[in-house]
Amino acid sequence: MPVGTVGTVKGIPQDLLEELGVNILLGNTYHLYLRPGVETVREMGGLHGFMSWDRAILTDSGGFQVFSLNELRKVNEEGVTFRSHLDGSAHFFSPENSMKAQIGLGADIIMAFDECTEFPADRERMRTSMERTARWAARSKKYFDEHKHGLPWRTTHAGPASVRAGKLQLAAHTAELRSAGRTRATASTQEGATQSLFGIVQGGMDLDLRRESAERTIEIDFPGYAIGGLSVGEPREVTREVVEATLEHLPKDKPRYLMGVGTPQEIATYAGLGVDMMDCVLPTRAARHGLLFTSEGKISIKQARYAKDSGSLDPACACRVCQRYSRAYLRHLYAANEVLAQVLNTIHNLSFYLDTMHTVRHSIRLGEGTRPHSGGSSQPKP
Amino acid sequence: MPVGTVGTVKGIPQDLLEELGVNILLGNTYHLYLRPGVETVREMGGLHGFMSWDRAILTDSGGFQVFSLNELRKVNEEGVTFRSHLDGSAHFFSPENSMKAQIGLGADIIMAFDECTEFPADRERMRTSMERTARWAARSKKYFDEHKHGLPWRTTHAGPASVRAGKLQLAAHTAELRSAGRTRATASTQEGATQSLFGIVQGGMDLDLRRESAERTIEIDFPGYAIGGLSVGEPREVTREVVEATLEHLPKDKPRYLMGVGTPQEIATYAGLGVDMMDCVLPTRAARHGLLFTSEGKISIKQARYAKDSGSLDPACACRVCQRYSRAYLRHLYAANEVLAQVLNTIHNLSFYLDTMHTVRHSIRLGEGTRPHSGGSSQPKP
Repeated sequence: MPVGTVGTVKGIPQDLLEELGVNILLGNTYHLYLRPGVETVREMGGLHGFMSWDRAILTDSGGFQVFSLNELRKVNEEGVTFRSHLDGSAHFFSPENSMKAQIGLGADIIMAFDECTEFPADRERMRTSMERTARWAARSKKYFDEHKHGLPWRTTHAGPASVRAGKLQLAAHTAELRSAGRTRATASTQEGATQSLFGIVQGGMDLDLRRESAERTIEIDFPGYAIGGLSVGEPREVTREVVEATLEHLPKDKPRYLMGVGTPQEIATYAGLGVDMMDCVLPTRAARHGLLFTSEGKISIKQARYAKDSGSLDPACACRVCQRYSRAYLRHLYAANEVLAQVLNTIHNLSFYLDTMHTVRHSIRLGEGTRPHSGGSSQPKP
Repeated sequence: MPVGTVGTVKGIPQDLLEELGVNILLGNTYHLYLRPGVETVREMGGLHGFMSWDRAILTDSGGFQVFSLNELRKVNEEGVTFRSHLDGSAHFFSPENSMKAQIGLGADIIMAFDECTEFPADRERMRTSMERTARWAARSKKYFDEHKHGLPWRTTHAGPASVRAGKLQLAAHTAELRSAGRTRATASTQEGATQSLFGIVQGGMDLDLRRESAERTIEIDFPGYAIGGLSVGEPREVTREVVEATLEHLPKDKPRYLMGVGTPQEIATYAGLGVDMMDCVLPTRAARHGLLFTSEGKISIKQARYAKDSGSLDPACACRVCQRYSRAYLRHLYAANEVLAQVLNTIHNLSFYLDTMHTVRHSIRLGEGTRPHSGGSSQPKP
């Protein structure tokens, strides 16, 4: 899932995202809550209507962002008091507030409000934090169940969410989010359509706590489960170890979402381990810094060596950037601080990531024993 | 002609420009000379190859930019010594150097090196400046004639430029630059293909000096003529008066190019007076400041009144921005300082300008006596 923080994948018009084959986007609740505000988005038909995007959207809970504010936040059992990074104004997020905001934004998939445990943390801290996340998950579920029909994009009322849950199970099974990308358009015209609320597993880097967190979250019962609290500074081997151990405790017939990863190699590897969904700012953020992913490795396009390089960025890539422009031109745009550098670099990096996942899905459908880039046998567990 | 200063219309991929119907772009020799440098562009196949743009390009002489540097330049009969706005390094532009640079860049239409007279200026200064421009025009023509076969995009040699000149006459006659936009691709495969060098009329706001400048420039003999030195701070009525008076002295069977104008109303008016070509940074620069041209007038999209406006930017506009996004979304993108604001605003403003000229051309073809927006009868002189 490409990240579209405040209702836009930075620099890319929505029709280009469609052409790239983006079927689901991530929006950040924290950013959207501050600007333009949930009420504005709701009145404009939810995030889908506001940004004119008919395919699927997932919003995070805002938890990760407010925990990243460090100096600007205070946490207690009730929730998190924080100050806006924009104007310093005071705000409060709780499981209930986060659900309220996410229902107002109206994404297809929304996330329970969790506490992202910092790294490093001692075992006591990891346990306390994991237990709080479990209590917040139950509060998130309760509020959601009581208010889930207050969606901006539905006019009919009530009924089970089984239609959507069924489609998401299919998505999990095939690791193919394409179908999920079409559920809202279908579901919103049906009675009973609503959002899917996913739970989040925490527990730091402790495998026992991860197991316990998984069990407690599953007990609450969600249509999908995320692994949170990773990619927070721990070594890559630890990330992989925790992912692998946690996946064992998550139901295989529901989507399993690994939050905040990773490089092209990593997403292929994690998909091989059985992860169905991932999001990461890396392809878009790296693009803005002139770092481009190619079939021949990572390229820093700002380097003078590309100044007269008439070759395409990645000869193996079929994206509109590689098909049309030279490395020399891309290098010039970056060196001249031109906005088109960001636009073209982002298009390419997103294309490279989507191609990577396309190949992964293709391999899974073929039932192959290996994944591209993953460098090992990593057949999804049966 | 949209302005693509350093080989890019800021923020807009070339395929979107093609979809918008852009058939000719302006590049700034001063900027391209400094970055990435003429030699780099030449080695990449000229500006067409470098930026991957097969349609027509016009480059200015660099004169206007170096004269705008004020503190950083010294002028004498030989040329202009100036300091780069990027790093303060010293450079020298003369008619010969400007031609050399423009031949290296390889645009379809290039401009004689002129002195843009400042406003206000006394008659003595206007005369001196106009006479220098005439001498520089002769030097530009001489250098061009001796070096015009050193183009980056031709491999064959010699021959008359009549094929291209003929097509440009057609363009002038119909005020339709579409055909000019296709001459390079055709011409570059023919022996004898070369660029078209246009002369520039100066003379400040003095109508007698403008007439004299026109006569002296025509005597040198160019395939097209530009009116320079306007839109430099003078009142709009004066601009119009000078344009109208100068056009009377320019041949009607060759393209007449008014440099650096204007608003949508102005370009329609000037086309009605008989101007065939115009360039302006206004649509693209205004877009970056959130100023949008619509059929209902100019809109400043940053205003809070648009925060919950679900209507399209311009209901009468068929561009991809007006067809897909709301004013509320465009306002949000601008307020959040998102790059997509610049991209979408630029697409709309360019579309509005191109639509304006499309309507003008349509009116001319129909032989109507009035022009849209021009508010008067302004049939091109026979």
